Amino acid sequence: MCPPADTGEQHHGYHSEKGAYLRRMGRIAGQVKGIERMIESDTYCIDILTQVSAVTKALQAVALGLVDEHMTHCVLDAAKRGGPEADQKIKEASDAIRRLVRS
Amino acid sequence: MCPPADTGEQHHGYHSEKGAYLRRMGRIAGQVKGIERMIESDTYCIDILTQVSAVTKALQAVALGLVDEHMTHCVLDAAKRGGPEADQKIKEASDAIRRLVRS
Amino acid sequence: MCPPADTGEQHHGYHSEKGAYLRRMGRIAGQVKGIERMIESDTYCIDILTQVSAVTKALQAVALGLVDEHMTHCVLDAAKRGGPEADQKIKEASDAIRRLVRS
Amino acid sequence: MCPPADTGEQHHGYHSEKGAYLRRMGRIAGQVKGIERMIESDTYCIDILTQVSAVTKALQAVALGLVDEHMTHCVLDAAKRGGPEADQKIKEASDAIRRLVRS
Repeated sequence: MCPPADTGEQHHGYHSEKGAYLRRMGRIAGQVKGIERMIESDTYCIDILTQVSAVTKALQAVALGLVDEHMTHCVLDAAKRGGPEADQKIKEASDAIRRLVRS
Repeated sequence: MCPPADTGEQHHGYHSEKGAYLRRMGRIAGQVKGIERMIESDTYCIDILTQVSAVTKALQAVALGLVDEHMTHCVLDAAKRGGPEADQKIKEASDAIRRLVRS
Repeated sequence: MCPPADTGEQHHGYHSEKGAYLRRMGRIAGQVKGIERMIESDTYCIDILTQVSAVTKALQAVALGLVDEHMTHCVLDAAKRGGPEADQKIKEASDAIRRLVRS
Repeated sequence: MCPPADTGEQHHGYHSEKGAYLRRMGRIAGQVKGIERMIESDTYCIDILTQVSAVTKALQAVALGLVDEHMTHCVLDAAKRGGPEADQKIKEASDAIRRLVRS
């Protein structure tokens, strides 16, 4: 998910991770559907809340994985190449982490 | 979403809210699908993170609405009826809030 | 910490808990002082972050305890007495939980 | 707060930020003392919760600042130098962000 504009080097080992992220998002989509069905069938709200917390946790795990991947690939590669691109990638990462912590 | 085991009184005004919750979950399901497509098409990970944070925020808003509804209906009604049911409803609410804050 | 304006009934069993909360806040104050010393002595920022996360967790635990106490005492008592006071207490609790989840 | 083991280059511009962090932690220490006094004087628990949320937010802002500084200085410098040190610094940052998001 972090292809730089100019090189394709860090694609190696990428496809297996992409499949893993898609499977995780697929499970999250299923959980969201499950919550819709719970609301539809008037499930007790505490049980719905338990499911909402589980989905939130699963989404945060995906986000933390993406942050890690962003830093290991995009930030590191940009830093090695040097120049303003590295600063920009780090600025983007900081802003994303900020949104994540506050979300 | 908070029908007590024994009475159905607090159902009044319920159906309109149920529709609103279903619409919100429908939008969240759409956002989750959107994230899957972003991963599929190798979107830049920072842009995916922005979407993941948006979905997390939307889920937390749903959860906070459910907590509020639980307290306004289930807890309040149980407290008025008195007895151990009220304590149990509050205990359940506390546990759900704990999971929510920690998720 | 939840004395209602008009009665003092739920004070029973209160003083021991108050002592426990004061001890917890005292420990948190000590941790905050420790972080100040870490910054002063140029400690590695990752180690400071670990301490900041620990203090945040400790504060959240205090907050969750206070929410629980508020619901078990203030909300429950107001609900038993009935009237608009119960709605207001629940509204206050919902707002506090919202701030807590979003903080 | 991010002096590398072997060089001191990124100290430039550091002292002013250190002063700012110390002032922020000083304010947080004052807020924590204020919460202790609120508990001591039996303040209404919702008002205490408001203060606890404010302190949590202030601590998170400090943590986000430290993460940003860590990436802008430690991670970037290590990445430029290359070698396993960069991977380790990024791993440390990821772990710290994980603790932060989950705290």
